[in-house]
Parts: sequence; structure tokens; C-alpha cells
Amino acid sequence: MSPEALKKHLQTLVPEHTFVADPEPLFTDQRRRYRSRNALALMPDSVENVQKIMRFCHEHRIPVTPQGGNTGLVGGSVAQGGVLLNLSRLNRVRRISLPDNAITVEAGCTLAQVQAAAQQIGRLFPLDLASAGSCQIGGNIACNAGGLNVLRYGTMRDLVLGLEVVLADGTLLSHLEPLHKNTTGYDIKHLFIGSEGTLGIITAAALKLFARPRQTATAWVGVRDIAQALDLLTSVRDAFAGRLLSCELLSRFALDLSARHSKIPQPLDAEWHLLLELDDSLPEPPLETALGEHLYAHGFADAVLAQSEAQRRDLWTLRENVSAAQRSLGVSIKHDIALPIERLADFVQNCGRRLAEALPAVQIVVFGHLGDGSLHYNTFLPDTLDNRAYQREDEINRLVYQQVLAHGGSIAAEHGIGRLKTAHLPSVRAPAEIALMRAIKAQLDPHGILNAGVLFA
Amino acid sequence: MSPEALKKHLQTLVPEHTFVADPEPLFTDQRRRYRSRNALALMPDSVENVQKIMRFCHEHRIPVTPQGGNTGLVGGSVAQGGVLLNLSRLNRVRRISLPDNAITVEAGCTLAQVQAAAQQIGRLFPLDLASAGSCQIGGNIACNAGGLNVLRYGTMRDLVLGLEVVLADGTLLSHLEPLHKNTTGYDIKHLFIGSEGTLGIITAAALKLFARPRQTATAWVGVRDIAQALDLLTSVRDAFAGRLLSCELLSRFALDLSARHSKIPQPLDAEWHLLLELDDSLPEPPLETALGEHLYAHGFADAVLAQSEAQRRDLWTLRENVSAAQRSLGVSIKHDIALPIERLADFVQNCGRRLAEALPAVQIVVFGHLGDGSLHYNTFLPDTLDNRAYQREDEINRLVYQQVLAHGGSIAAEHGIGRLKTAHLPSVRAPAEIALMRAIKAQLDPHGILNAGVLFA
Repeated sequence: MSPEALKKHLQTLVPEHTFVADPEPLFTDQRRRYRSRNALALMPDSVENVQKIMRFCHEHRIPVTPQGGNTGLVGGSVAQGGVLLNLSRLNRVRRISLPDNAITVEAGCTLAQVQAAAQQIGRLFPLDLASAGSCQIGGNIACNAGGLNVLRYGTMRDLVLGLEVVLADGTLLSHLEPLHKNTTGYDIKHLFIGSEGTLGIITAAALKLFARPRQTATAWVGVRDIAQALDLLTSVRDAFAGRLLSCELLSRFALDLSARHSKIPQPLDAEWHLLLELDDSLPEPPLETALGEHLYAHGFADAVLAQSEAQRRDLWTLRENVSAAQRSLGVSIKHDIALPIERLADFVQNCGRRLAEALPAVQIVVFGHLGDGSLHYNTFLPDTLDNRAYQREDEINRLVYQQVLAHGGSIAAEHGIGRLKTAHLPSVRAPAEIALMRAIKAQLDPHGILNAGVLFA
Repeated sequence: MSPEALKKHLQTLVPEHTFVADPEPLFTDQRRRYRSRNALALMPDSVENVQKIMRFCHEHRIPVTPQGGNTGLVGGSVAQGGVLLNLSRLNRVRRISLPDNAITVEAGCTLAQVQAAAQQIGRLFPLDLASAGSCQIGGNIACNAGGLNVLRYGTMRDLVLGLEVVLADGTLLSHLEPLHKNTTGYDIKHLFIGSEGTLGIITAAALKLFARPRQTATAWVGVRDIAQALDLLTSVRDAFAGRLLSCELLSRFALDLSARHSKIPQPLDAEWHLLLELDDSLPEPPLETALGEHLYAHGFADAVLAQSEAQRRDLWTLRENVSAAQRSLGVSIKHDIALPIERLADFVQNCGRRLAEALPAVQIVVFGHLGDGSLHYNTFLPDTLDNRAYQREDEINRLVYQQVLAHGGSIAAEHGIGRLKTAHLPSVRAPAEIALMRAIKAQLDPHGILNAGVLFA
């Protein structure tokens, strides 16, 4: 059905403001690699209207692509025909309960909005990503977002107490009570989390809140290799337990790029760099002192402890600017991967060697979240400052993913499979698992209208 | 097929020591309410032999009931014909990784064995239940066990990084790499967790480890009502964050019974009692001082802080002996329920009133894990010191579960549905969810051989 014909039908069901007047900004994905085609963009303002749209689309076999903040990196929210269902207008904070330490929000709330709502009542919602200002909770859940604080708080999956979901046929499933213990049959919630919009439209979620920090300690540490970094991570974890919030890793090359780009001096000279951040809900005694003593006792006398909020910001800027800084190297083939932490050093060494053998000019920028084993592993071919780099993409991906799998890792740590990686799914999931995934999909979405082309090839 | 005929067939496939010589102890459940009938008890010593048994049973449509430590309370591990598959011999610790903070163990390891293995390397495996010495990890996962430390560490579900599972047809699924970020399709692991043996045989798991505590502070606090208990819980959480390990609640009546039974003086006089425990990975400064100051500042000047390990043990004995102490009241109808914490006070009041109206002689013992909203809500009819109490079981259950649901709670917090509660499943899960559960079951176990009669009526 053409967008125009579709609109005529739907106009009898939902109010006129549901139809997006200028849909262009919604049609192109963040990295400009995918574009929606032949689609009608809708922005319903109530769960009931989402149900009406789904009932109609289910009955008439119209494809539906759910979309949140459209910040995904794997092409998961572009529509190929049918309806592009943007959830932005479902953006109310429905409920907060302090005894339950829980907040119930609608899917279209931005992550920053939820963080702010928690802060207003003196609590913390700990998920944090670079795109917090624009990404939305529904998308965070559908993609099982990760980010900076996974080491302590887990991924989005670990922060969800309950979901409200509109199924493909318009049925509403609602489990928003903040229950911490509930064992009544298969846990279906976890199917929707990370399903990338293929099983239902998430419309609201009950999320966990945490105590806010009242002091922070930030240190920059140089290490000679990843093995030494792991020893330090292990000892800091043992001593400080849940106080450890982040343990970020940068290669010398990544720091060089970022320091130049950021015009901030390098804190110290080393092969590998760690950015550690700890915080505490108790304001006393100073965590900085304890961390400094720990680092000194473990042989890191030259570690830099942030002495002010400005210095702390500088250290984080060095970490956060790696992505921007590496653009000077040309177009990158990025890999969003995770490894067992114990095998991370072997992976970096072996994968680097294989890449250099296959592509002698390759440059590799390695950085990421050491504390949870996820790496940004970005490769550059310096002679290609334009899109020609993508010509080698398949070859590079094959090589990197092969090494990831050989070291027991994941080829999609925190961005999902989307459209970009569907060809790789059979290499990471057993046939029995894919058969189960397809059976689940067939049961919940028998006409296959939800986000077709995503996840399954 | 009779047990004898079945044995003859299986003798050609697995070694003789697989057949349990004296199966009687495995055939009766913990509460002596259910008994295995007409079953052959097997104790395979390798994953490969589990696969062989499953392949045979799948092909010949032989029912299989998996069993761990047989400590369940809802009749989930009794066999009605076919094979009783006891996992006790799969009891190796396969692997420990300090950088990953992970331990990989086989399903038949007891919980205490895993706790001890973690302790040996200076780490903590935090799940803890009264039956730790005999319950097994496979059962803990299959039932999504809860226990004392859920407030900080979550239920078993939150502690699993990966699973190894033998499917009904003998296929082995293995995802034991300790990955903290992995978003490659639907998270099937979470289907097996809490599936009560109906979807596959869990043979091994990669589990999270944590830092061990180096100091503990324990306080007994009297409160006038549950609302005041919640205010205190909220303030302690806000101040001490992850240091709070347990927040247990006892009614005056529950403490009376336990103190008499335990021959330990009551720490203080109050309508309701809280047992708070905090710990810290840093040995200094003393947590006890900070907790004492917090309680004083919040108006609990008469709170009792344990001054010695002996006093701490006494306080915990008062909490732990409630179950044993209440036996003097006769046969109890127990309810393993969870509520949104915010609605717990209303539930206790409303449910108590309804019960008293229906059964004027009823006595109610209320205690449980306030910090995660789960209650042991046990009812007694004092004139029945024998099994006649069970005659009123349906009536009492109906009334209590109705109130639980009216207050947004769960009728199976940490013991599962088993055989005991199958009739109630349709009242807590929507038809679309049950249809999905059945589709998942049909895909993974097309002949319905796994733990038939459990979960689904």
C-alpha cells in the first residue's frame, strides 16, 4: 500500500496530528548509511493509538518499523515501506516510587529526561551514553543499550523491572509493577529487551533507580600492557567493590589522536592508558585518598588523580574525543565487540597481526570499556579518505569477527544486529537457537510485519 | 515403558553406575507432599551421557524430570513415570577467571560448594538460601532462586552470565563465555532461567563473582508500622547505597514465636522489627559507627547494633528461626509472595482483614525480605494440628492470591509454580503470554517430555 493510500485508511482511526508533517529527519539513520523508503511516518500520542495502528497494520499485513531517537548505528530504525512508527510523543514520566527505588516512564522519554527525573528526587538512573540527549528509553530497551556504567550497573537489560508492550496484533501486555522477585513462568520481558523492534512495540517501562553519588575520584593510570591493566582492574575491584564505576582503556595511538584533537596535554606517557572512576554515596572519608594509596601500593606512583572538576572533565574529554579525533584518519570500519576480559590482550595482539598481514597500511584505534570487556575496535585505511574504505568492509569485518569468535567474544556488544550484521547471525547462534528465535517471532508476529529485515536476513 | 524395560534399553547407552541403586531418597519431595511414581532414577556423570539419555527419551517419548538437590517447595522435581534425571554427579568447578570476575560450574554443584570455591580465591558468590548445603546450582537457575541477598545482588537470574543446556532432543547449546555485553538476537538464556526444567537440562553455568566483605554492621530496629520501616529503608539505601545487604522484616507475633523457640531475649519491644545488615569491601572506617549515627539521626536511638559476632548470630537466629518456631502453631498454609514495596503495608492490612473475616481463628505469621518486597505470609488454623489444615488450603490460597494480585504482587516470588500452583498461572499471565510460553515449549520440546505437569496444568 502506498503511503498516501495508507494515510487515507489511518485517518479514520487516529487523530490528524499523528501524521508527521515533515518526516525527512526521521527517514535517514544516524550514520547516513540507510534511508527509509516509501514509508508513512506516524507519531501517536497514546498507547491506545499505537494499538489502533498495530491492529490495522496486522490485519492488512502492513510493515511497521518502530523508531525512538533514531540514534542507532546498525540501521535498525529505517522503514522499507509501510509505517515508520516514531514513539517520541509517548514521553511522560508516569510514576516514581521511592520505597521501590523505581521509575515508570514511557518509551519516548529521552534517556536524559529519565536521568533528570531521577536526579530531581535525589536518585540516579545510571544508564549513560554519548547520545543521552536524543536516544529514547524504548530504543535503549529494544537494543539493550550499554554505555559507560555497565561495569557497575549492567546493561539496560539489568535496569528493567517491567515492560508495557503492544504486540503486532494490537494486544497490550502490561507488567509495570516494580517486582524484584517474580517467578511465574518464562520471563518474556527479556525477549523484548534486545529484540530490536521485531517482537512488539515497547510503550513503557518500570526501571530501577539507585543512590546518587556524593563524591567522585578519577584517576589516569599508565600501564605497559593489557595484562597489567587487568591486574590493576582486579585489585581495584577487590578493594573497592561497587564503588568502581568505570574502567576505560585507550591505546597510545588512541590517546595521541585525542590529545591532539582536544588540545589537552597527555596526562602521562605509556603504551596503554586507563581512566578509572569511582564514586560513593557517603561523602566521607575521601575516596580520592584511598584510591591514591591503592595505586601507590600497587606500583602506580605516577598515576594522575584529578584534583578538580575541571581536571576530571579534561581526563574524560580525552576519552570521549577519541571518536571525533580519529575522523582525521579517514573513513573507519568500526567494530562494536566484547571479549571475555581474560582474553582481551590475546585478541588485540592476534587480530592486530592478522589485519596487518592482510592490509599492511591498516591503522587500528583501540579503546573501550575494559571493565566490561567491550571494545571499540576501529580500523582505517589511510589512503581512502572517502567512502571507498567501505569497499574493504566485508573483508575487514570477516577477519575481525573471525578473531572475535576465536577468542570467545561477541560481534555485537551494545549496538545490536540491525540490518548491518544480519549475515553474521548464523555464525554466532546455533541452528536450534535461530529456530527458536523464529518460532518466537512467528508466534508474536505471525505476519512478520514488525521491523522486517532487521535481525533475520 | 516400565522402569525395568527402560533400564534395559538405557543400559546399552550409558554406564551401569548411571542407574541409582537406592532411589528412594530422590523420590519424595522436601515437604513430603509429592512422590515420584513409576520412574527410573538416573545420575549421569557427564554431559555426553545426559545427551545420550535425552536423545533416547526424545525418540521414544519418555518423560524426563530433571532434579538437583530436591529442595524445591512446589513439587517441581518429582517424576510421574519415565526418567528422574538427577544432576548431582555433574559437580565440577570448571573454571575461574579473576579478570572476568566469573566462575563456571556444573549444574550439580551445591550452592555451598560454589560459595566455598569463590571464597578460596578471595571472592564472593552472593546467592544464599537456607538450603545452601544441599540445593544445587542447576536447580537454583531453573527456579530462579532468591534468598537473603536479593536486595543487593538480585536473584539467580541476575548472577548468570551464560548457560550450557542439553535440549530435549539431546542437542547441546553452550554459551559459557563470561560476556557482560552481548546483543545478538533474542536472549534465550533468560528463558531457561526460571523455566523449572520444562525447556532443557541445564548442565553448567558461568556465574558472576563479587568482592568479599571486610567488615559487617548489623542492626535490629523497632518500628511502629510498615510505613515507618519503608522510610527507614529508603533513607538507609540513599545513604549507604550498595553497602546495604539485607533488610528483613518481622511482625511482633513472628518475633514472639521465634524468641521463645530460640530462647534468645527479644532485642526490643515494637510492633514491627527490622534486621538490617550492611557490609563493605574496605575495612575502614567502621561501618557500624556510620550506621549507628544514621539510625540515631533518624530517630531510632534504641536500635540495637550487634557488638560481637555472637550477638550478630543471635539476631540472625531470631530471624531464621521463625520458620521452625511457627510449627508449634500447627500446619501452615505458606505463601511465597512479592509485592511492590510501596503497597506492602496496604496488602498486610487488607489481606489480614479479609482472612480474619473468612476464618476468625486464623493466625498469620508475617516475615520476609522487606528490601526486595518478598514476604513469607504463613497462615495457621490453631485447631488443626494435623493435615486437616490442608482442607482449607484452596480457600485460603484463593483469598490471599486475590489480595496479592489486587496489590500488584506476585504469587510466586522465589519458589516457582511447580505442580502446586499451575492452576493459578492463567490468573497472572495474559492469554498471549501463555500462548507464547506454549509455543516456546513446543519448539524446544515438541514431544512434551520435559517435566510434564510442571508450570502448565
